[in-house]
Amino acid sequence: MYNENWSRGEKAVARRAYDAARSREYSALAEQVRRLAKNIADPGDIWELHDFLSRKRKGFDQKYNYRYSKLVFVFAELIAGGWLTEAELAGLDEDKLARIHFLLEV
Amino acid sequence: MYNENWSRGEKAVARRAYDAARSREYSALAEQVRRLAKNIADPGDIWELHDFLSRKRKGFDQKYNYRYSKLVFVFAELIAGGWLTEAELAGLDEDKLARIHFLLEV
Repeated sequence: MYNENWSRGEKAVARRAYDAARSREYSALAEQVRRLAKNIADPGDIWELHDFLSRKRKGFDQKYNYRYSKLVFVFAELIAGGWLTEAELAGLDEDKLARIHFLLEV
Repeated sequence: MYNENWSRGEKAVARRAYDAARSREYSALAEQVRRLAKNIADPGDIWELHDFLSRKRKGFDQKYNYRYSKLVFVFAELIAGGWLTEAELAGLDEDKLARIHFLLEV
């Protein structure tokens, strides 16, 4: 079994990293939305933007799950997506960092 | 029973009016979307835009129904919404114009 205990220090690191990644992804999404909206040329573009937002919303809901039992997977996905760096997770115990690193390799 | 026969001339008037109204409403929607996108300040604003588009899409799907048996109602709704004027329907027979006018009064 894995160590799913999170010390107070680890929780602070995790929360900060999670919030930073989410904030970055939201900023990028807002920028994409503004660009798509600016480039609306015909009615189809409006509904494409709607479809795009539906997919993104589903993606955000699935990805941003702050449960300690899921965080290792969440962090691996955020790093893989470019929203977080492994360096920002410094402070988590070695076991968790190794599991995250492993998930990034597979 | 109402006269649901549409002469060739009426069909041309109807199509032109319908397309004009739809085009205007799409242009207005595109403008609203651009404004909302430009003003995104936090994540909630993104999902509000998504909800807004969901409602609009449903509204468009319900409203823009080009079936001759429905057009009198469609035109009344478009006029009530400010997307069409009664004057643009000149060329429809008196019975249809009277029904549309009646729907606008009730």
